[in-house]
Amino acid sequence: MITIMGLGTSLPGEPITNAKMEEIFSIRADWIDQIIGTKTRHFVVDLDDRNVKFQLVDVCYEAAVKALEAAQMKPEEIDFVVLSTATPDMILPATVNLVADKLGLQNIPTYQVQSGCSGALQGMDLAHRFLQSGEFKNALVIGGDVCYKYIDFNRDFKKMRSTEIINFALFGDGAGACILTNAPECPGIRIDKIVNRCEGVNREPGQMINWFGSHMDTEARDAKGKKLQVLREDYKAIETHVPRMAQEMIAELQATLNWPSSEVSHYLPPQLGGHMTDKIVNFLQIDPACAINIVADTGNVSNGLPYMQLEILASKMQAGEKAIGVAIESSKWIKTGIALSKE
Amino acid sequence: MITIMGLGTSLPGEPITNAKMEEIFSIRADWIDQIIGTKTRHFVVDLDDRNVKFQLVDVCYEAAVKALEAAQMKPEEIDFVVLSTATPDMILPATVNLVADKLGLQNIPTYQVQSGCSGALQGMDLAHRFLQSGEFKNALVIGGDVCYKYIDFNRDFKKMRSTEIINFALFGDGAGACILTNAPECPGIRIDKIVNRCEGVNREPGQMINWFGSHMDTEARDAKGKKLQVLREDYKAIETHVPRMAQEMIAELQATLNWPSSEVSHYLPPQLGGHMTDKIVNFLQIDPACAINIVADTGNVSNGLPYMQLEILASKMQAGEKAIGVAIESSKWIKTGIALSKE
Repeated sequence: MITIMGLGTSLPGEPITNAKMEEIFSIRADWIDQIIGTKTRHFVVDLDDRNVKFQLVDVCYEAAVKALEAAQMKPEEIDFVVLSTATPDMILPATVNLVADKLGLQNIPTYQVQSGCSGALQGMDLAHRFLQSGEFKNALVIGGDVCYKYIDFNRDFKKMRSTEIINFALFGDGAGACILTNAPECPGIRIDKIVNRCEGVNREPGQMINWFGSHMDTEARDAKGKKLQVLREDYKAIETHVPRMAQEMIAELQATLNWPSSEVSHYLPPQLGGHMTDKIVNFLQIDPACAINIVADTGNVSNGLPYMQLEILASKMQAGEKAIGVAIESSKWIKTGIALSKE
Repeated sequence: MITIMGLGTSLPGEPITNAKMEEIFSIRADWIDQIIGTKTRHFVVDLDDRNVKFQLVDVCYEAAVKALEAAQMKPEEIDFVVLSTATPDMILPATVNLVADKLGLQNIPTYQVQSGCSGALQGMDLAHRFLQSGEFKNALVIGGDVCYKYIDFNRDFKKMRSTEIINFALFGDGAGACILTNAPECPGIRIDKIVNRCEGVNREPGQMINWFGSHMDTEARDAKGKKLQVLREDYKAIETHVPRMAQEMIAELQATLNWPSSEVSHYLPPQLGGHMTDKIVNFLQIDPACAINIVADTGNVSNGLPYMQLEILASKMQAGEKAIGVAIESSKWIKTGIALSKE
């Protein structure tokens, strides 16, 4: 049995309000309130002086240190590290190895999983399977994202298409981490099951993040020389598929574990944006009081969000309770779910 | 016990000679011969008309199809897919999911491991551990790289610094794949052990590949507006550390498995470049006749190369023989090794 021993999260700088978003990006604050439903988010870049204050490695490191502290564990007790992200600082070195370096960790395996919103649960799935083998005892699992990568301050935000400007209103920066252990009789939340499945053969990607390499002057621009979007999303496809996929994942976990809805006290639903998450909760017929949402305060910090939801869960979960979390990746379509309980 | 059931490799287009390299990139053919020692390589881009003929997904798919054929297995028998790369087609979707899509695979886990030269063995390590759990039976493990990402035909190659132009002479494009199975009494090469360790706390990266996101006009250029290198390498650091790390890995595997050198018939040494690999073989005091090298014919196809070496191994390995393979990652420093035997 694998236990979540400690959790840590990191949100860089002060929360950025919708009023500030309007001032900087010319996105109307009332539009963000009404359409997206996200109130604040954090950015690694200072919006006033445009200095980049943190990188992905920094927020991931801070979350990792907090998770180690929460688990009352020293870095040298960690047997391997997994980091999931959609926005690495560089292509190489992998950010996981920069975090390991900052923690003074070496002579252990490290893995960086390239994924979007399902990355946190994919990373935990990987760690969970490694720990079940019994060869390792403790895993440090991290997820984080930094959307500064696709905010270009040299552009005129007023002239941006709404399909692009919406990304600034939706996303936020941050990271989360946890310590997983196979130590017996360890206090904490127990992982009963993690499921991780790709789907959607022949279905177009709902999200794309481009890397143009050296081809910045050619492939990164359209025929008129205008820069192409680094990040593109198909919100219609996301709205169509994410609620159904979340429903299927919850049903599968409940059926596999024989957990009727009446026994599940907490749900960690997909965190796309404030309003979309509320819609999903409604679609899933979950009592809103049982849903742990954070996206309205943090923006969509894709690989970091499940850790932030787990941190809230850990603060309120009672002995004997059960919880189910779901994360859906819309680039190519991946559904992931986690079933948790407390003895 | 996990067995390599089938192997497949893909090298795009025709081999590119050093004479052709001189014609296109103004890198003197005799300099490549004498300093690098690589004779041919393959590129996804046609050097004459500059059309990109293949992407990473294409070479990975071709290698995967060949590995499935070699294992006489249908895609639907695969229980999960792992792909390692340093040069994904896009940041999202992860290339692994595009390959899965082309194979018609869904409802299974997929993982993309972000790494450089050690990625193939990290991917196999991941798959090996998953298979040992017994929950899965067959894994498709793929590794590939495409250096077109950092070849910019709009630049004047004659004015490039030697630290940059050397990368064109060193690297090549391609992919490899294998089917791993935990089916008992399966014919093929048996995996006795895979070791995967990061090292070098506080040691500077020996390789960096940048992703500038939307910041192509600012962070991707120096103060004079000149484009920065997407790929940078510290060859001195690589020459210093890789031979020692390879030696340590071989010694560790031999000690762990109690395999004296006299019992190891084949070595798959790190494949940096033709001459550097020869130097490493010499440093390791391996009989050159026992070393399986391919880099002089393919260039450094980092995540693909170990599969190409394994394919040669599979063609010559006799019952009762043992083999050891090593791959070293120099971005942040990772040493990986694999011990193999045939019954």
